[in-house]
Amino acid sequence: MEKVRFGIVGCGNMGTGHSKHFREGNIENGVLTAVCDINPKKFKGFKERFGDTIKYYNTAEEMFSSGECDCVIICTPHYFHTDLAISALDHDLNCIVEKPAGVYTLQVKEMLERAKSSDKILGIMFNQRTNPAFKTMKKMIEDGKIGEIKRTNWIITDWYRTQYYYDTGAWRGTWAGEGGGVLYNQAPHQLDLFQWIIGMQPTKVHAFCHYGKWHDIEVEDDVTCYVEYPNGATGVFITTTADAPGTNRFEVTGTLGTLIFEQDKLYYKQLLKDERIHCKEAKSGFETIEVLPTVEVKLEGENTQHKGILNNIANAILGLEEVYAPATDGLAGVQLANAMHLSSWLNITITLPIDDNLFYEELKKKIAVSKIREVVDDDKVEAQG
Amino acid sequence: MEKVRFGIVGCGNMGTGHSKHFREGNIENGVLTAVCDINPKKFKGFKERFGDTIKYYNTAEEMFSSGECDCVIICTPHYFHTDLAISALDHDLNCIVEKPAGVYTLQVKEMLERAKSSDKILGIMFNQRTNPAFKTMKKMIEDGKIGEIKRTNWIITDWYRTQYYYDTGAWRGTWAGEGGGVLYNQAPHQLDLFQWIIGMQPTKVHAFCHYGKWHDIEVEDDVTCYVEYPNGATGVFITTTADAPGTNRFEVTGTLGTLIFEQDKLYYKQLLKDERIHCKEAKSGFETIEVLPTVEVKLEGENTQHKGILNNIANAILGLEEVYAPATDGLAGVQLANAMHLSSWLNITITLPIDDNLFYEELKKKIAVSKIREVVDDDKVEAQG
Repeated sequence: MEKVRFGIVGCGNMGTGHSKHFREGNIENGVLTAVCDINPKKFKGFKERFGDTIKYYNTAEEMFSSGECDCVIICTPHYFHTDLAISALDHDLNCIVEKPAGVYTLQVKEMLERAKSSDKILGIMFNQRTNPAFKTMKKMIEDGKIGEIKRTNWIITDWYRTQYYYDTGAWRGTWAGEGGGVLYNQAPHQLDLFQWIIGMQPTKVHAFCHYGKWHDIEVEDDVTCYVEYPNGATGVFITTTADAPGTNRFEVTGTLGTLIFEQDKLYYKQLLKDERIHCKEAKSGFETIEVLPTVEVKLEGENTQHKGILNNIANAILGLEEVYAPATDGLAGVQLANAMHLSSWLNITITLPIDDNLFYEELKKKIAVSKIREVVDDDKVEAQG
Repeated sequence: MEKVRFGIVGCGNMGTGHSKHFREGNIENGVLTAVCDINPKKFKGFKERFGDTIKYYNTAEEMFSSGECDCVIICTPHYFHTDLAISALDHDLNCIVEKPAGVYTLQVKEMLERAKSSDKILGIMFNQRTNPAFKTMKKMIEDGKIGEIKRTNWIITDWYRTQYYYDTGAWRGTWAGEGGGVLYNQAPHQLDLFQWIIGMQPTKVHAFCHYGKWHDIEVEDDVTCYVEYPNGATGVFITTTADAPGTNRFEVTGTLGTLIFEQDKLYYKQLLKDERIHCKEAKSGFETIEVLPTVEVKLEGENTQHKGILNNIANAILGLEEVYAPATDGLAGVQLANAMHLSSWLNITITLPIDDNLFYEELKKKIAVSKIREVVDDDKVEAQG
């Protein structure tokens, strides 16, 4: 094939955003050929921009069967991600799902199981992985620049949303429609990076989720979570959609130094001796370890974001690159979010991997009493973001 | 009286430190007249510096009864603070206790009860309260500069101590000798400031204390604590003696802005509208609140530390000033530390005020199996710090 033909499922915020990259020629080896949405009102902007150069379908099934696409991008509410991805693979299509991979581990595992027996690519839109700061941070940790990890601390509270935001989508902020709040809609990027960067998944989680604390919603909009790692390290992850202007600061401390990501900059404090060795060998109680002056790490390359992930998938389909963010990587973030809820609901420390069925049973209890929201302005319904 | 005559109980690190301020003439209305220690070896440095200008006693009782002092400074291991303070008051002496006020709330309350029926001053060495950054932070919060508090976050991990440190004192790092670790020896300052600055005490505490995690000790050297406040705000408090170089960053977020203390500087982010009002009134989902450029707050005045507290007590005794850090303020920090242990020991969320007796019963279980340390070098025994 010359160019990979893309189709978009769900013409809301994210679907619209992705389409622009095709229109602006940002996807070298990709072209948009089709979109679908169950609400034809949503085609309006697409028709203005793409006219008859793309096809319009009312269901994913029609688009998947049309033969117009080689790869589809799933930009629907969260619950539909996994079934649509499975359907895409069943139609022999490559696929990218928006984050999160799904709402609960059981459905994500079902999707990943299906992907195993497919030769098609299944990727996930972890576009923040393209940030040179995060890539560098991951690389430095892999290269042992801070030694063995002892502590992590992410304050990611700059996901501000107003009440109006939740009021513009009937599914928003509801258990039945969205399946979760800040952990499922805004912070999935950080839940991914939190694990991807340090190369470890927590083994224990104790979270304090607050539901509808700052907004009139059913789901969590304020979370403080404590984690423990297999090597004994500990960490916290703090997020909300109610802090303004909010903070985005990720500190990782190791035996040989500290990395601090803050406001898109990366800082490095390098110790000249391993702390664990120094602690045992020092012959004075207050003897500190020599530390080099804090440096701002030089970051190279562009933060290509969605464009980068779309280009990568197109190139991967053409056999030119490895998939940068495979959907298999999406499980860890969903599991961590599930564990945080389970911990809060049951008020216990959760050991990972979680009990997939237990979580799903508890989630269903929430869904059973969930109420669809009254939407303030149907024309402004946003699909994602 | 012309100058307040001070006596020091315990001639270790802190006692030595305080004595230097008298020798250097830093205490305008105070003079050192006596010291006492059960270990006469500890007089060595004092005799070199003060010779016969001060009196030396082998017991606190002798010094308290001598008539040589108007005020005594208690610099002994933690468990003795309260009994010695009570004895000082019984001898009609003014008194300053080193931090913490005591090891457990029961003994601190006993001390404070005694102080109620005394006309003498009982202060506590919260010398970090003299830091202009903390004073300014407290004042700005009191003045409503950040509105209603929503979130607190203190990473105070720059209390690095080597194994040698613990090995230099038989009582160090033991339940029987010290009664706790980083929360009782190093971080009491921050446990105080954490509450003093924001003007609220937590009502709920869930802590994850790790005991002897980084050092060969019985007590905690790594703590992550989640708290909730009466107004619904939440926070974390993270401390350790094992991180190098460590971090000291205290962020407080309110409805009108954020204050960040970091590396002895104070930063202010001011919102032009109350977040709670904006959230409800905004007519767009992503509409942010206008925020003024982050400013570094200008700090005025000297950080007088121990010298400042000693001068204040001398002046307070002479009726020239109010007591800046009364011992009554010491209860909150001890209670918070006790609550953190109780939460960890029982693996439950603790509601404050704590059950004083329950904590003491649990502490006694630890003391019962506590072992005195083998000291590496008796000449280097340090009393505090």
